Amino acid sequence: MHALVYDGKLRQVDDYPRPVLRAGEALIRPTLVGICNTDIEITRGYMNFRGVLGHEFVGVVVACEDAAWIGQRVVGEINAACRDCAVCRRGDESHCPNRTTLGIDRRDGAMAELFSLPIACLHRAPDRMPDAVAVFTEPVAAALEMLQQIHLRPTDQVAVVGDGKLGLLCVQAARLPGCDVTLVGRHPERWEFLESMAIHAIHVDELDAAYTARFDVVVDCTGHPHGFRVARRLVRPRGSLVMKSTFAAESECNLTMLVVDEIRLIGSRCGPFAAALRALDGGLIATAPLIAARFPLHDGLRAFAAAAGRLKVLLEV
Amino acid sequence: MHALVYDGKLRQVDDYPRPVLRAGEALIRPTLVGICNTDIEITRGYMNFRGVLGHEFVGVVVACEDAAWIGQRVVGEINAACRDCAVCRRGDESHCPNRTTLGIDRRDGAMAELFSLPIACLHRAPDRMPDAVAVFTEPVAAALEMLQQIHLRPTDQVAVVGDGKLGLLCVQAARLPGCDVTLVGRHPERWEFLESMAIHAIHVDELDAAYTARFDVVVDCTGHPHGFRVARRLVRPRGSLVMKSTFAAESECNLTMLVVDEIRLIGSRCGPFAAALRALDGGLIATAPLIAARFPLHDGLRAFAAAAGRLKVLLEV
Repeated sequence: MHALVYDGKLRQVDDYPRPVLRAGEALIRPTLVGICNTDIEITRGYMNFRGVLGHEFVGVVVACEDAAWIGQRVVGEINAACRDCAVCRRGDESHCPNRTTLGIDRRDGAMAELFSLPIACLHRAPDRMPDAVAVFTEPVAAALEMLQQIHLRPTDQVAVVGDGKLGLLCVQAARLPGCDVTLVGRHPERWEFLESMAIHAIHVDELDAAYTARFDVVVDCTGHPHGFRVARRLVRPRGSLVMKSTFAAESECNLTMLVVDEIRLIGSRCGPFAAALRALDGGLIATAPLIAARFPLHDGLRAFAAAAGRLKVLLEV
Repeated sequence: MHALVYDGKLRQVDDYPRPVLRAGEALIRPTLVGICNTDIEITRGYMNFRGVLGHEFVGVVVACEDAAWIGQRVVGEINAACRDCAVCRRGDESHCPNRTTLGIDRRDGAMAELFSLPIACLHRAPDRMPDAVAVFTEPVAAALEMLQQIHLRPTDQVAVVGDGKLGLLCVQAARLPGCDVTLVGRHPERWEFLESMAIHAIHVDELDAAYTARFDVVVDCTGHPHGFRVARRLVRPRGSLVMKSTFAAESECNLTMLVVDEIRLIGSRCGPFAAALRALDGGLIATAPLIAARFPLHDGLRAFAAAAGRLKVLLEV
């Protein structure tokens, strides 16, 4: 089958073996697959992944031991957990030490004609939800994860650093409790739709001293080590710094100053899918302004080239 | 007056100018002053401090505009805040951007015959509390700060890394909610008194794979960058890593793995004095086993030499 594979190099492959149906899993024919910054980082060595890329998808179940799933339009959680170990039993399935992760860690991803995922990971997409909205469920869940992890108060001042794909979702998640939200970015052409949401935006080069230590909560979505330094500067003493950035490179941070200012650093990754589907279905999160381009899967190399430094590129399978 | 001064070098000085009484402050004659690792770090360049060292003290008020304080035996919070700015008004006086800090930042400390501190920082020591107990109020407050910052549940497994002065207090604070507490250290000769408290202790070199990702909460009290790496290894995904270590050197940490494991890093510094006095007065925290030696103030250089790598050295003024 056709697939977009990383084996040390990104390749379009025509003869990739079709997945076989395993117990407890479903075979899914993807309709749309999003390219995420994590995919781009993987092609730079992140996670040492080898295999089919892709973890943001919407698709249709074509084979499954539970016939009720067949023909259903689904999105899916990306961590395939054992659901048997102590970590899973305490409810932290996304941190299962035995997990594989779709298109990220020892599990072929969705950028292919067919892929496999445990039934336990599947969520039905609401009938009225277009594919181009449902495909954002995974990153919207990741944006909502910070509301799962920390208590965002309506009176909080929140800054989101980074106006990439995830930043534009996190800034929308942060405004939901009623917070005063500021987006810090480098791409004013991406900010227009935020105005009607009463989200301020400012260019990172225009952050003067008035912004230093101003925010109760700062979210780093830049995907670069320098984003952490900007975020660190914006957060107030005893404030929270939520880190959504993963990247292949190591980085430095001054731990002593985190102690002196009693900052809380909160690593934040995958989030709640059911809540993300509700937020999307209820119109709380806009996704259309985030779509930069669509390519057919067999144009995957061109799609990846177009995705670097741009908003969401979708692959049509 | 006699004072122990750091001016790029640690010196015993006989002719240091006596402090003058300022509005809103009290002049205090210290009785006992503790040497803290922060003092030792300052003599290595931390905070670029110049002046009289010392921030852990018990003493007697000898001059004050409010006569009710004169003759009172007191301990004192070390951050002299403006109590006027937005940070102070929201209750974060210990993070006031205009603050000076006793013996740490632009305010002469307690290792002298006399020193000055705002009245607002003072707490009366209970009559029945010996000086050798009261002098521990500041570090006990720092140990209790983690209970102020995070919810330690009775069912939590907690590890404290570092069996120095602060580690031996943090491990006692961590057991108070009923937690299962393990001390990780390098000095078995310091652990004997912990046995009756049902606190386990283990040598850092004996941490086998069974300890990896085992603890809900890990507290780094080592004062060294390597302590962070040990603590990071012990904490479970979605666990909390409380950092009490400050040191002059920069350090590296892998921010990406904090994101992947959704770790919470919590910088933790000064704590609640009234609670520390209650805990000490009520016999919840043992301090006698922490005292390594006592020196007269005029033997300050010898005291500092003796303090490095040992438990609490007290200066008698």
